[in-house]
Amino acid sequence: VSILETPYQELAQEASRDLKGDGVSALLKQVVQLALRFLTKECDRLKLKSSVPGKEYFSFRVKGKKNKFSRPINSKLFDPGTAVKLIDRLVSAELAGVSQAQRGRALYSAAMSYCCATDLLKSDDRKTPATFFEIFVGHLASRAFNINPHKKIDVLALAPGYSLPTDFVFDLGPAKSRIHLPVKISTRERIIQVWAHQRVLDGVYGINRFRGILVCLTETNMVRKDLSVLEVCLPEQWAIYQMFISQLYRIYYFDLPVKYAPLAKRYPIHSGQQLFRVL
Amino acid sequence: VSILETPYQELAQEASRDLKGDGVSALLKQVVQLALRFLTKECDRLKLKSSVPGKEYFSFRVKGKKNKFSRPINSKLFDPGTAVKLIDRLVSAELAGVSQAQRGRALYSAAMSYCCATDLLKSDDRKTPATFFEIFVGHLASRAFNINPHKKIDVLALAPGYSLPTDFVFDLGPAKSRIHLPVKISTRERIIQVWAHQRVLDGVYGINRFRGILVCLTETNMVRKDLSVLEVCLPEQWAIYQMFISQLYRIYYFDLPVKYAPLAKRYPIHSGQQLFRVL
Repeated sequence: VSILETPYQELAQEASRDLKGDGVSALLKQVVQLALRFLTKECDRLKLKSSVPGKEYFSFRVKGKKNKFSRPINSKLFDPGTAVKLIDRLVSAELAGVSQAQRGRALYSAAMSYCCATDLLKSDDRKTPATFFEIFVGHLASRAFNINPHKKIDVLALAPGYSLPTDFVFDLGPAKSRIHLPVKISTRERIIQVWAHQRVLDGVYGINRFRGILVCLTETNMVRKDLSVLEVCLPEQWAIYQMFISQLYRIYYFDLPVKYAPLAKRYPIHSGQQLFRVL
Repeated sequence: VSILETPYQELAQEASRDLKGDGVSALLKQVVQLALRFLTKECDRLKLKSSVPGKEYFSFRVKGKKNKFSRPINSKLFDPGTAVKLIDRLVSAELAGVSQAQRGRALYSAAMSYCCATDLLKSDDRKTPATFFEIFVGHLASRAFNINPHKKIDVLALAPGYSLPTDFVFDLGPAKSRIHLPVKISTRERIIQVWAHQRVLDGVYGINRFRGILVCLTETNMVRKDLSVLEVCLPEQWAIYQMFISQLYRIYYFDLPVKYAPLAKRYPIHSGQQLFRVL
């Protein structure tokens, strides 16, 4: 059993009880600190070949174990020192006054910490990193909005009492749009689901009643045979989804892919606003 | 290497060259015959516990190997004798005159043959059964429509020359709706993609320019701890997708799930026609 097993289980349990609570802040702090300590003390860095212009990557390996790699990490964004220094403000979502660059590095490092440590401590565990990232983002969002989210909505059009499972939904009060907040480690071809769910919300409740905000970690993929890293992006397909299925309000990345950056300014899908933002 | 490896590879290659051709008919015949012979000669049947009213299931195991199970098989539909007897007409899609019950058993047995044999001959191979089923259904449909399908469509709204990857699309000529034919072994939560793709086609080309016909094998799931079989179905969610995302024209199953059958007659999603059919 890995050193992260128990704190992760406690975090998952506490998050389902009160996602925005101080209990989740404390457990997030514990998990991130443990994971970063493991990565910085017990692991070596291996530089990877970058196929992405302007980005550099490395992978962690446990000292003495040459054959097991963590997922690739963006060298310029990974900054465990800043994450540890800001850890209390980070897990409480009190980052006002911190520069955007520092905030971005602290958030990226904290989000990657558990994922990379799990890559090395367990075999083929894709589920708990995804859940960790969902809890991390959901916790920050629920503190920022000052309300816990739901994970289902009523669909009275169908049948009395019937509700549809959803990603996080935040109800900000009667005169405000609700927030539909899907959270994904990476998107691949499954992402069309997010636009489809937004379409259902628009249809059931009306346009602009739910604002869709997609939050993603990264789109990196490591090619094992030459240890190179690329970003898997489908900007043309995303433009089609945004034009023909539904309109997401914002898309945030912890590590914005190079090929998605231009979508922020592209006619007509940005609708006069910047669709893409970096956290 | 399993006995099915080489014929499967040849089938996949030939299907990408000419899906509706006689070459695919011959290779499908070979794969189905080999798989059925392996299952009937070298395997035992183990009765499973059914949690589905009115259906009975069993699983194949290689003789003497107690711990590896094939996916569950519907006892009433599995009929290798009829599949072998009708094999030439089956792989050429010349089934007119065969009773619907016989046709259904022959199609189900042929479709399950490669999937079950692969469950036993390989470890955790989910990809080639899905591809086999796609080739099998695509071959029959392309012979019935007398044209090979495309796997992409032009989206001129976006950029000159840009095309979107799709499931099978059959172009039946200028005065007819094209057919959008997604093919899935089973659906689970990913299926919302099918309605989303249909929505994109409706948006890009106009309503009723593409008729969406979803073809699925089965929705069975085996619970390992007590060897029981259930059908994983989300009829309420499907009704919502059909009302709020797009309208599929038909949904066909080789083994129609009990909970989906009532959707065929349910107001308002069937739109005056039977949405659900058994092949």
